[in-house]
Amino acid sequence: MRRPNDVARNEGRPLPASPTTPSPVRIQMIEDSQPPATPQLAELYSDFEASMMVPLWTQIADLMPASPASRARAHLWRWSSLLRLAERAGDLVPVGRGGERRAMALANPGLGGRPFATPTLWAAVQYLMPGEVAPEHRHTQHAFRFVIEGEGVWTLVNGDPVAMRRGDFLPQAGWNWHSHHNATTTPMAWLDGLDIPFVHATESGFFEFGPEDVDTTATPARSRSERLWGHPGLVPVSAAVSVPSTPLFVYRWERTDAALDDQLRLEDEQHPGVLEKGHAAVRFSNPSTGGDVLPTIRAEFHRLRPDATTRTRREVGSSVWQVFQGRGEIRVGDEPWTVERGDLFVVP
Amino acid sequence: MRRPNDVARNEGRPLPASPTTPSPVRIQMIEDSQPPATPQLAELYSDFEASMMVPLWTQIADLMPASPASRARAHLWRWSSLLRLAERAGDLVPVGRGGERRAMALANPGLGGRPFATPTLWAAVQYLMPGEVAPEHRHTQHAFRFVIEGEGVWTLVNGDPVAMRRGDFLPQAGWNWHSHHNATTTPMAWLDGLDIPFVHATESGFFEFGPEDVDTTATPARSRSERLWGHPGLVPVSAAVSVPSTPLFVYRWERTDAALDDQLRLEDEQHPGVLEKGHAAVRFSNPSTGGDVLPTIRAEFHRLRPDATTRTRREVGSSVWQVFQGRGEIRVGDEPWTVERGDLFVVP
Amino acid sequence: MRRPNDVARNEGRPLPASPTTPSPVRIQMIEDSQPPATPQLAELYSDFEASMMVPLWTQIADLMPASPASRARAHLWRWSSLLRLAERAGDLVPVGRGGERRAMALANPGLGGRPFATPTLWAAVQYLMPGEVAPEHRHTQHAFRFVIEGEGVWTLVNGDPVAMRRGDFLPQAGWNWHSHHNATTTPMAWLDGLDIPFVHATESGFFEFGPEDVDTTATPARSRSERLWGHPGLVPVSAAVSVPSTPLFVYRWERTDAALDDQLRLEDEQHPGVLEKGHAAVRFSNPSTGGDVLPTIRAEFHRLRPDATTRTRREVGSSVWQVFQGRGEIRVGDEPWTVERGDLFVVP
Amino acid sequence: MRRPNDVARNEGRPLPASPTTPSPVRIQMIEDSQPPATPQLAELYSDFEASMMVPLWTQIADLMPASPASRARAHLWRWSSLLRLAERAGDLVPVGRGGERRAMALANPGLGGRPFATPTLWAAVQYLMPGEVAPEHRHTQHAFRFVIEGEGVWTLVNGDPVAMRRGDFLPQAGWNWHSHHNATTTPMAWLDGLDIPFVHATESGFFEFGPEDVDTTATPARSRSERLWGHPGLVPVSAAVSVPSTPLFVYRWERTDAALDDQLRLEDEQHPGVLEKGHAAVRFSNPSTGGDVLPTIRAEFHRLRPDATTRTRREVGSSVWQVFQGRGEIRVGDEPWTVERGDLFVVP
Repeated sequence: MRRPNDVARNEGRPLPASPTTPSPVRIQMIEDSQPPATPQLAELYSDFEASMMVPLWTQIADLMPASPASRARAHLWRWSSLLRLAERAGDLVPVGRGGERRAMALANPGLGGRPFATPTLWAAVQYLMPGEVAPEHRHTQHAFRFVIEGEGVWTLVNGDPVAMRRGDFLPQAGWNWHSHHNATTTPMAWLDGLDIPFVHATESGFFEFGPEDVDTTATPARSRSERLWGHPGLVPVSAAVSVPSTPLFVYRWERTDAALDDQLRLEDEQHPGVLEKGHAAVRFSNPSTGGDVLPTIRAEFHRLRPDATTRTRREVGSSVWQVFQGRGEIRVGDEPWTVERGDLFVVP
Repeated sequence: MRRPNDVARNEGRPLPASPTTPSPVRIQMIEDSQPPATPQLAELYSDFEASMMVPLWTQIADLMPASPASRARAHLWRWSSLLRLAERAGDLVPVGRGGERRAMALANPGLGGRPFATPTLWAAVQYLMPGEVAPEHRHTQHAFRFVIEGEGVWTLVNGDPVAMRRGDFLPQAGWNWHSHHNATTTPMAWLDGLDIPFVHATESGFFEFGPEDVDTTATPARSRSERLWGHPGLVPVSAAVSVPSTPLFVYRWERTDAALDDQLRLEDEQHPGVLEKGHAAVRFSNPSTGGDVLPTIRAEFHRLRPDATTRTRREVGSSVWQVFQGRGEIRVGDEPWTVERGDLFVVP
Repeated sequence: MRRPNDVARNEGRPLPASPTTPSPVRIQMIEDSQPPATPQLAELYSDFEASMMVPLWTQIADLMPASPASRARAHLWRWSSLLRLAERAGDLVPVGRGGERRAMALANPGLGGRPFATPTLWAAVQYLMPGEVAPEHRHTQHAFRFVIEGEGVWTLVNGDPVAMRRGDFLPQAGWNWHSHHNATTTPMAWLDGLDIPFVHATESGFFEFGPEDVDTTATPARSRSERLWGHPGLVPVSAAVSVPSTPLFVYRWERTDAALDDQLRLEDEQHPGVLEKGHAAVRFSNPSTGGDVLPTIRAEFHRLRPDATTRTRREVGSSVWQVFQGRGEIRVGDEPWTVERGDLFVVP
Repeated sequence: MRRPNDVARNEGRPLPASPTTPSPVRIQMIEDSQPPATPQLAELYSDFEASMMVPLWTQIADLMPASPASRARAHLWRWSSLLRLAERAGDLVPVGRGGERRAMALANPGLGGRPFATPTLWAAVQYLMPGEVAPEHRHTQHAFRFVIEGEGVWTLVNGDPVAMRRGDFLPQAGWNWHSHHNATTTPMAWLDGLDIPFVHATESGFFEFGPEDVDTTATPARSRSERLWGHPGLVPVSAAVSVPSTPLFVYRWERTDAALDDQLRLEDEQHPGVLEKGHAAVRFSNPSTGGDVLPTIRAEFHRLRPDATTRTRREVGSSVWQVFQGRGEIRVGDEPWTVERGDLFVVP
């Protein structure tokens, strides 16, 4: 190695990470690893630590596994339990500026107690009491809401009031202003999905507060976004541009139900349509591009006929599933579960 | 100019286009053009002709105009007249293999009597008598049908029967098998739009005959394509791939009507949506991409409030318009027309 | 057909195309076509003509052929002949404003004497005498130049002087200002390729004059575009945006030669690279997208080893080929030709 | 909240995460947070922990900061120190199967001692002794090598030997087989860059071992990939397809040097090209797309004139910089450093 003179002067001593703080690097000597554990090696490792360096050869098994052995684990949360806890939080925890939302996140047992359902996805039960307002804010995290039961909350997205009802799917791209208010006399719970862990890992989150109160308490049955973008295959000429996240803020249950039903009837008539025998599935898509509703989250709705069995799948991406209706047997890895309405489980 | 020896031997005489046929090239000497009309120039031009060459300087005004002065002209066809002619053709001209369709094309007065509505678009009235079948074929030309009135014909697209009813728009990408059959006791007429002139100019047309009779005379109210692709923002997971032409074979009038109505109501409530004051417009789009329904044809539906006036537009592409309902004043260039239901006009 | 009352009143008479001018539509009755040639049919056809309508059934064979039987024909032009004619034009025809260029276009024998090499491509020999200037203009037509021999002309593209030398390929997107000037004491000829026929058919041409004289007579060996974009795989951060046409204004012969040579050497070493046995080929590409250099024109350079034979191809697009060096046998359809340096031929 | 009967039976007790293992969830009561710290709240939090749930309101400050306050810190590593440590590792640590590479990664002081230069990037010094072979493997992580000094190692990428020399940049998409061998009598060090932290966070890593020895010890001056893809604007017709990662395996210093030099000369002549005054910059790009060389890593080379000062930038993405030659002052946040050849620093 040719080393020019002008950088030779520092050779004697590695530059310490900082004169006053100890290095966080800790290198373990591994018995059956390549280099024998000599005093010289110990000294080298110590100098690595002081220099903020980590050798690949002590870390490669963890960093570069043969296949992604996810730290996340398959796990099941019962809706009945989640709801009971949410109700108790409704009694004890106010909603407002600062805490922002009465949302309780699923914490995957494999992820060290962090509120992450999978390494990239956040899933939480949000609960709003009669008359309550979850104050306006916006953030770069992409989000969706899915309503497993109940109705009566309106989400205001950039001033557009969107009713939430059982079966509705409400995607919402990052950086849209949004708030929720419960216009009824009963509480309401729903599922919040976000890409918080992904944004956290890539450190790309921005957040901004809006007003504490909602702009409008109007409760229209249809949002403005549905009126502009909710007509199949019809895009407004005034806005006919591709946008990376869907301009349609809600996908109504009636439509999803009809689409799934149509697939099964096509199967009855022996025409293509279902994903596999007895298994209908639709993907929520951005009508301005035909692609996924959100850049970081794919969302689908699946329906199985009674007694239908899906083939075993192996996937690289992680996913969170919620049972909308019915009851069934699920097997994730070695975990067999009987699941029913509202139950949530993670496929890591 | 350095000219190597090995190509010098042909210099004496230009190679004739063909020993036996005269050249089709004819070069005019233009008085006020640059070179003076000398005998030498005449001889050069004669040799150009024999050599199948044309100088730019005699053609540039036609070939490279300052702006596209379309040969096509603004023109209006009255639906009542077209329909009367179509009815007479119904009496005199059978439908079947060879002629393929009882379609009568609009011939733009500026395009030399060719059946081209504009330099790139074909528009024709097609007419089908009770019980008749227009036999199956396919072609690379992209097509759509638009139903100005009537119902009772089913178009079979790759075996999928698609009902045609007033207000429906039926795009159909090139190379799909298709036929029509009239399942009623009354005739039916509709508008056929194709890119025949474009394909003709680029010489990219292929055509293939199918069976003379239809596979099925089933008359379902909804086609299979609607059941798979007609749900807003929902794409079948079994087929979730981008395709260049729309997989949805019909855009129903009820949906288009509702979308246009929604835009005008949003305007009533002072929200964005309309294209301009009193002017709602939707674009028919491919749900798998969000883009245009066909690679070569853009299709839109516009609605004007009573007394609304659109701003004057200048466009480069050519277009064909048909009045769906109501009555109005149109001005194209210097042509002012009062148009009503069914009337067709060309903007060159 | 249900016809509402309000459009019934016009039924009696079709609206004439215009009261004063005769219709250009002429419909032929074809003996072996479907409808028998009755007086009623003749009257219908006459009314079609008056109404500017053309039935599909008399035109379908021409409009929708089973496969594109191009009107264009395979044809060969000898470079030696073209050059001799160009030299004579150099003596007789000045270059300047109005005629714009001393360019002589190849007229395909199948295209009626029009200056079109194929239905979509223009190919012309341009010839510039010592000291001459072809004045600045711009147009929406996309263009390229290819230098079969000689050197000494600079093309100014938006003020950037680009030297032209044997083997160089100079693409130039529509709407760039450009002019040429010959800085030497010998004439120079080259091939101009444009999409004039395509733009003519789609009526999308705009054209604008610039100054009659060139901005600069500088004769640098390398253009500014080469300095910014001519480094393989390196794009300037100041301009790193995808543009639809190449920002590199010239592809030098030395580079093309080396690339083709490299492919043949890879073949010698039994590695992939050549298109087929003994046949190297490169495509000129837009470094900002990796795609074709121009939206409407694909350009490639092919090299065959001595005695190599390419497989027979059938293509849909039309092409123009020029022999850069060597001598060979070409077969297009039934036409066998012996071609040599500079010869041009069309594959329709 | 309407709760149907059939899910009521589980209400009494939340389902524990697992009967035998304690939950990893730990919820802190925060004094100045919204809900008062009552026994009821403590019990709720305890039940949250048992149920694998985490409330948003205790975590939001960390999870959703107003702007990304990266855990990573600006940090500087001296090349001279790194090289000295690498040399000592050369003496003590063998290279071979298992450890795979003698690579020493930069550990950002803010990332807890993990071998991550930034939250998404890995940067390591790799060191190979005379005659050594780093055995073949492949992984989904994307990688590049950059040579700060020395030469004599060949990287075999899918069997293609690529010479490594000072200034060369060698990107290598995930899942390509690769190995290194030192064909000289002197050691060689270089910089390895990978997206290991990103792949780790998204758990998308696969890894596979190849043979322990190299297929070939050939030491050609040019790789096959350069011969196919290293010609500016020329793509092989045999392979002209867009691929997401660059098919060109090395960007030679001579080319980068010339491109940067050209930009500064254009600036001398007052033409556009540089990024800002005195600051030339090129981006390494994929010749098949014009886009970034790798899906997850952007790579650029910058050159500053003596005494040039760049404007202050604020960026969201993280980056690692290495000084190729010269000496200068750098300020990252509040850190002012004098840097010289080889020094590496992180901008978080």
